[in-house]
Amino acid sequence: MAGHSADVIPTRSGPEERSGRLRVLLSELGADSLLVSHLPNIRYLCGFSGSAGLLLVERTKSTLFTDSRYTFQAREEVIGADVRIAKRGILRALAEVLRDRRRRLRVAYSPAHMTVGEKQLLERAGVRWVSDGNIVEKLRAVKDAEELSYIRKAAILISDVFRRTLPLIRSEVSELELAAEIERGVKRGGGSGPSFETIVASGPRSAWAHARPTSKLLRKSELVVLDQGAIIAGYCSDMTRTVHLGRASAKARSLYQAVLDAQHAGKQAIRPGATAGEVDRAARGSLKSSHLDRYFTHSTGHGLGLEVHEMPRLGKGEQTVLCEGMVLTVEPGIYIEGLGGIRIEDDVIVTAHGYDNLTTAPRDFLEL
Amino acid sequence: MAGHSADVIPTRSGPEERSGRLRVLLSELGADSLLVSHLPNIRYLCGFSGSAGLLLVERTKSTLFTDSRYTFQAREEVIGADVRIAKRGILRALAEVLRDRRRRLRVAYSPAHMTVGEKQLLERAGVRWVSDGNIVEKLRAVKDAEELSYIRKAAILISDVFRRTLPLIRSEVSELELAAEIERGVKRGGGSGPSFETIVASGPRSAWAHARPTSKLLRKSELVVLDQGAIIAGYCSDMTRTVHLGRASAKARSLYQAVLDAQHAGKQAIRPGATAGEVDRAARGSLKSSHLDRYFTHSTGHGLGLEVHEMPRLGKGEQTVLCEGMVLTVEPGIYIEGLGGIRIEDDVIVTAHGYDNLTTAPRDFLEL
Repeated sequence: MAGHSADVIPTRSGPEERSGRLRVLLSELGADSLLVSHLPNIRYLCGFSGSAGLLLVERTKSTLFTDSRYTFQAREEVIGADVRIAKRGILRALAEVLRDRRRRLRVAYSPAHMTVGEKQLLERAGVRWVSDGNIVEKLRAVKDAEELSYIRKAAILISDVFRRTLPLIRSEVSELELAAEIERGVKRGGGSGPSFETIVASGPRSAWAHARPTSKLLRKSELVVLDQGAIIAGYCSDMTRTVHLGRASAKARSLYQAVLDAQHAGKQAIRPGATAGEVDRAARGSLKSSHLDRYFTHSTGHGLGLEVHEMPRLGKGEQTVLCEGMVLTVEPGIYIEGLGGIRIEDDVIVTAHGYDNLTTAPRDFLEL
Repeated sequence: MAGHSADVIPTRSGPEERSGRLRVLLSELGADSLLVSHLPNIRYLCGFSGSAGLLLVERTKSTLFTDSRYTFQAREEVIGADVRIAKRGILRALAEVLRDRRRRLRVAYSPAHMTVGEKQLLERAGVRWVSDGNIVEKLRAVKDAEELSYIRKAAILISDVFRRTLPLIRSEVSELELAAEIERGVKRGGGSGPSFETIVASGPRSAWAHARPTSKLLRKSELVVLDQGAIIAGYCSDMTRTVHLGRASAKARSLYQAVLDAQHAGKQAIRPGATAGEVDRAARGSLKSSHLDRYFTHSTGHGLGLEVHEMPRLGKGEQTVLCEGMVLTVEPGIYIEGLGGIRIEDDVIVTAHGYDNLTTAPRDFLEL
């Protein structure tokens, strides 16, 4: 039965709901207020997407400090926070506000997202600083329905863009040109942009796990690693495929299969209650069985949301417990100097019983 | 007369020359070594362009710390520094090396480019930390010939891309689509990518000085602000033009002329020996004479190089003295809610007697 009208829970938008949840946790941190300096955290909590701002979350209200470039934008975007346009520096405006609060206020902040220089400027505020224990990042790790719908769209978009780019992947096209086509496809498809600088790495350069695209032309018999992502409403996707130009050797095919098997093993380890490290161990163990683990030089994956790398990290021994609603990449890869690199990456959501793929592009070894 | 062969100055590449200059300055800082944590500074000093690294510059050698993702890339790129691949964290590897040096080593670092969390991790090194006084940024403010040639190319590229984009700026095209075309043009033209997220802001949104492009379609009688840049070999350009769709009102034309006049006034104030603040005052004063200075809500410009914003800042009262070889943007703008925004930005180099324009796209008010 529905409650009486007086009991109806007011409909609140995402940011307000998130700030409410955060306030409940604030006292556990032993803090009166939280200073949020990391821009994705600010966007998460009040909707502001500008490139300069600080958000002060207090018990009963929040205040966004930004500068005059963002006067109109802040007015349009910000939900559940007052906006204060700082005329002579955002940090200074914040320090003045804190100084006017009662003495010995305990303010939580993120040591990972404040520079030593900024902290020095804030000392004039005369408050006690405590670490925020990455509280906002932890909240962000489990996505709400609105967030999931954006990530899902971003994952489908990048999958579609990859499929449409396939006919262009051929000899004598440059890495940069392919990257440009992918990024244009993202924007034409309604994304606000790529979620990171698109990687197109061919031939020997594919053995660089984080190569930037260059003017190098693709050639027959090369492996090509394409790592790409899209942003929709601030939310990221991140997908890698590796293709081969022309018919591949039996060796290349078996290496590809080993990476695909490792990715599958990693995905199979995903379920609520498993640790992030268990997923990494499953993928790494699979490569170990084919003696390829020494070529797997990075972690198995990472969380995905307002940032293209966020909590949790799927690395060796990571103890973070996976929960339903987390969004993860699973991306084992091997990099063999001289021969090249192979990486296969999908975005998945942790479901009640396992995982669902969000990226949909084919994972078969494509010989183009 | 040329010297004897024994006196011939050895040809050294840019990064080695720069590190040499830096070592001379180190003792003035009261430091034995310099820890460089800001990635553009690392690239400047040793050529490494990866996304994770720390560079330790000591009296007789330099060491780059990075992780296994960059093993091959570091080997290929790094000049004048040993490379150390950290297995369990870059900061930890650095702290261990510092701990093995003699006690009470004085190490300069940048409080602006180290987080409180990173600094805490480095405390185990047991050294004395002193501020680096932005020494690398100061060196970077004056460009050498190699740097200038890249910035010049990046400026010409973005000017060409803008010119080629002009026919596409018309009604019913979305901001995002235009931004995508510009960014594709940059990559097709040999740039490694845009130097920042391209801004295309039309109609009322043009009054947002830092608007991101959206799916909004351009319409007749709107102002459109296009702010774009290219990267070539790591070096940035940054150029803004404002156009009008269809015939503009007399009012819009006079506002445009006022901004153009302000930009000209700013440029005229540029010469070796002038302060950054004088350039800002000249541009702002010009707008003041037409009672528009209150709509000019940001500073007049900034340095440009490996970063799209670097020293010096052309803002109110800035005392930095301009020197030959500095590269600056000059970009006054006015933002009037409801009416829209107008910004005109060029990149210039400070010459012996004034300045040269690097960006070449037309500055006339284009009614498209």
